[in-house]
Amino acid sequence: MDRTRLRRKSSRGSHDRSVIYAIVDEALVCHVAFATPHGPIVIPTIHVRVGDNIYMHGSAVNAMLTTLATGVDACVTITLVDALVLARTAFHHSMNYRSVIAFGRATEVTDQVEKLASLEALVEKIETGRSRECRPPNHKELVATCVIAMPLGEASAKIRTGPPLPDDNDEDRALTYWSGIVPIVTTRGERIPA
Amino acid sequence: MDRTRLRRKSSRGSHDRSVIYAIVDEALVCHVAFATPHGPIVIPTIHVRVGDNIYMHGSAVNAMLTTLATGVDACVTITLVDALVLARTAFHHSMNYRSVIAFGRATEVTDQVEKLASLEALVEKIETGRSRECRPPNHKELVATCVIAMPLGEASAKIRTGPPLPDDNDEDRALTYWSGIVPIVTTRGERIPA
Repeated sequence: MDRTRLRRKSSRGSHDRSVIYAIVDEALVCHVAFATPHGPIVIPTIHVRVGDNIYMHGSAVNAMLTTLATGVDACVTITLVDALVLARTAFHHSMNYRSVIAFGRATEVTDQVEKLASLEALVEKIETGRSRECRPPNHKELVATCVIAMPLGEASAKIRTGPPLPDDNDEDRALTYWSGIVPIVTTRGERIPA
Repeated sequence: MDRTRLRRKSSRGSHDRSVIYAIVDEALVCHVAFATPHGPIVIPTIHVRVGDNIYMHGSAVNAMLTTLATGVDACVTITLVDALVLARTAFHHSMNYRSVIAFGRATEVTDQVEKLASLEALVEKIETGRSRECRPPNHKELVATCVIAMPLGEASAKIRTGPPLPDDNDEDRALTYWSGIVPIVTTRGERIPA
């Protein structure tokens, strides 16, 4: 599809499912865009991937979910920042990142088995094993929750890795400024009991 | 304006400029949404705030920047994930986060003083003091770069902090599952020279 064609810096792009899935799975939140009568909006939310779908959930009266459930055009973007790239020239400063952009239309998950499985996957994403270490949703909670599935069929990844680009000329190469990368590290800290 | 009115969980919301600015300044990337002929799209990019504007930059032929520069409706969202919230019930699992959503229309920065200042601010955001430790942009690089400014006039913040919500009933309160929060910590790692 034309809109998933990689345009600028297409050498950084990929349609490889395993590359896309790894980025989607590592990220804790995605950013979902859709049109509203007031113009486009983009909202962050936790997501989980099961197979070729991204699942999102929230209150059954949540405006984003109820809008997406009507099948409007949507775009989901997932971004991991890996490093800051410091070059000898301001111009070549950059970031190392991994991102996925998916276009498509979401559908509401009404099948109760799929709905429960996606909510379980969300809890497992928060912490592996956690779905067996908490009370599962009861009927009232399930009714109060909306789950939607967004397909990853029209997704592409874009990745920048490695050091700064080579300097453009001898004059820049002769500059003695430090160059290299500063990793951005995201970790889970010490648990704090309630 | 109606579109910045806080709807769901408005107790988590704020229009306080200092709250909004702190979130915008801490985040390394923002997510920018706008309409295309193929539907809405959301793209991640590095940003920097100067005063009440968010500045974004890139190649002068970058599709996102050239589209935004025409003054289309845009939405910029910035999200910081602070912690995972583990409750005794699956239903009350959550995340602590700080986010800002800004609606508006961007303009291209054509004033050369403002353009240079915003590019300097971007390099300073990557690392404090860095703008004096690299070669500044030359004329050719400035021409090859597009900078746009997005106003924060129509921005609001949304924040969740603290432990899980209280359990809904005595039965849940009697559950012995661990509950509390797992901080998500983002740090700058050891520098790696090129």
